[in-house]
Amino acid sequence: MSDRRQHRYCVIMCGGIGSRFWPYSRTNVPKQFIDFFGTGSSLLQMTYERMLPLVDKERFIVITNAKYVERIKEQLPELDDSQILAEPDRRNTAPAIAWAAYHIRALDPEASMIVAPSDHLITREHIFEKCVERGFDFVETHDALLTLGITPTRPETGYGYIQIGQETEPGILKVKTFTEKPDRELAQVFLDSGEFFWNAGIFLWKAETIIGALRRYVPDIAAEFDRGGDVFGTTGETAYINSTFASCPSISIDFAVMEKASNVYVECVNFGWNDLGSWSSLYETSPKNIDGNVTQNSNVMAYGSSGNIFMAPSDKLVVVSGMHDCIVADAGDVLLICPKSEEQKIKQIVNDVELRFDGKYL
Amino acid sequence: MSDRRQHRYCVIMCGGIGSRFWPYSRTNVPKQFIDFFGTGSSLLQMTYERMLPLVDKERFIVITNAKYVERIKEQLPELDDSQILAEPDRRNTAPAIAWAAYHIRALDPEASMIVAPSDHLITREHIFEKCVERGFDFVETHDALLTLGITPTRPETGYGYIQIGQETEPGILKVKTFTEKPDRELAQVFLDSGEFFWNAGIFLWKAETIIGALRRYVPDIAAEFDRGGDVFGTTGETAYINSTFASCPSISIDFAVMEKASNVYVECVNFGWNDLGSWSSLYETSPKNIDGNVTQNSNVMAYGSSGNIFMAPSDKLVVVSGMHDCIVADAGDVLLICPKSEEQKIKQIVNDVELRFDGKYL
Repeated sequence: MSDRRQHRYCVIMCGGIGSRFWPYSRTNVPKQFIDFFGTGSSLLQMTYERMLPLVDKERFIVITNAKYVERIKEQLPELDDSQILAEPDRRNTAPAIAWAAYHIRALDPEASMIVAPSDHLITREHIFEKCVERGFDFVETHDALLTLGITPTRPETGYGYIQIGQETEPGILKVKTFTEKPDRELAQVFLDSGEFFWNAGIFLWKAETIIGALRRYVPDIAAEFDRGGDVFGTTGETAYINSTFASCPSISIDFAVMEKASNVYVECVNFGWNDLGSWSSLYETSPKNIDGNVTQNSNVMAYGSSGNIFMAPSDKLVVVSGMHDCIVADAGDVLLICPKSEEQKIKQIVNDVELRFDGKYL
Repeated sequence: MSDRRQHRYCVIMCGGIGSRFWPYSRTNVPKQFIDFFGTGSSLLQMTYERMLPLVDKERFIVITNAKYVERIKEQLPELDDSQILAEPDRRNTAPAIAWAAYHIRALDPEASMIVAPSDHLITREHIFEKCVERGFDFVETHDALLTLGITPTRPETGYGYIQIGQETEPGILKVKTFTEKPDRELAQVFLDSGEFFWNAGIFLWKAETIIGALRRYVPDIAAEFDRGGDVFGTTGETAYINSTFASCPSISIDFAVMEKASNVYVECVNFGWNDLGSWSSLYETSPKNIDGNVTQNSNVMAYGSSGNIFMAPSDKLVVVSGMHDCIVADAGDVLLICPKSEEQKIKQIVNDVELRFDGKYL
């Protein structure tokens, strides 16, 4: 066990912009860098601390966009600069994960790795630890790509689903299919069937295994990295990436590999997960008062109001009357009031704000 | 004319707390002290400047609560300290006006005076000037209590109405009755009849005339001031008031005198008046965009939203979607969101805030 631990790496994906959480999540300070719950830790710091019992700190890799490097150094000062991989361009998750895998394999050909988003909430960390331990054990002993599948608790239409197949060992099953975001009716069928789990975007595999899969299913991406030869893990790596990364197609790891490969497994887990992907997903999983209102870190007086989610600076008083099923998000310089059912409009709003205010408020 | 001007005084009533305009109007900074329209002048300063062509600045009197004296000195530095009458207690308008009348009569037994609230908006100042000139001329030549009656433009239920009687001279008529705030149906009848005007709370009379009326209709109040003898206009006035003012009953000048006296006249005027008494009265009289939204001094992006009034700090971006007929008032440390139809709840909300936060946010 202690021997295996020396080969375990943690890749924290930290390049997202979280635009669906505007105005709290901003281009310059996306949600992973925010103390979202007023606990004193940003979501990135919470992710780091959650993984620390599982992976030694010198084997963390944070992959991000170049513009966020300084902020990561501030928030995780215990990391060495070499542990931050700065993407020169946004290319979705497949190229980012490919780079991390080539980098890690160069450091340790026997390495296994967990890939974890930096902006999710996990509440039952003790269960999380056990799940990840079991996942590492599995991928270290199988030629397997493992994804964590969250036991669904509602007919969520905002997530992808994983359909389970044959059980391989307790709690770990072959994946039958990946499914895109379903409509409400289908989501209910998925929930009732007990055969479908949420795709959390948390993966475990050996570096060698994912590189093999990339070569097979997205050879154009793998080729960009294979051309680098022995450059990974050396001082030439940054310059090499800066010259080639933009050539990679922008594609997600799910679409590039997971939906195509035959050695994909799911570990079915239940550790209190929220992707904080949208205001209403935060609403759904937060504790509610008797009127069904959720209050994040603020003073709210709600009269004849129900089903709302409120977020405001902690010293601000928010008073509402006769308001139902809305998002009220006061981020200091921006106030957003929007029905939860219209939250998909937020992306369009962010575009409009960009056009109208030339970068201000983003 | 120039001779008469030397006897004309302006009394600005500046002691209100404007609680219906919370959270913009605060106990410590009521709405008359706020630059409400982002013009660089507070409502008090606008009132002063509006009257300055009509009354010489040394004949202004500002009557207020003791706690606002310093703020008035800041906002109207051209006034002498002796021009500010500081009430030691709140006693509604009749005792305040009585004090001002006794004070002014001591300075000039022939004085006429206009009494004007400090927190109203008047847009057509040129017409206002002509109306006030005519009103002064009338009360200086008649034993008359004159009130300005605003030509109504909508069936407003928030105002008192004045029913007109016989015309005495062009534009000035005997008052038949004063009417309390009507319900919606009655307000429509008033509007359609052409016989009813809004009671704006702007009065003109000779000091001697109002003192006579006070003695007749509220002798208990008049007695408190008559006991002062020659103290008014002397250095002993403040001490005298501090020892007796609290003994006055709290009563409005309308109820104390205007509704009872027989020599009450109304000048029917139309100079773009708004009492800024409530958010929806401000909404009603403000310019609206194509969706019927009113925006005060802020950046608003409204999607599928209509009939709202928005007020926020000028550098704040407010984004709303699917919101109708609401008040959205962001006053920095307090955000209020409330349907316009429920604005009468604001007084209750302010009480609740006081109980819960012990003076903060008021």
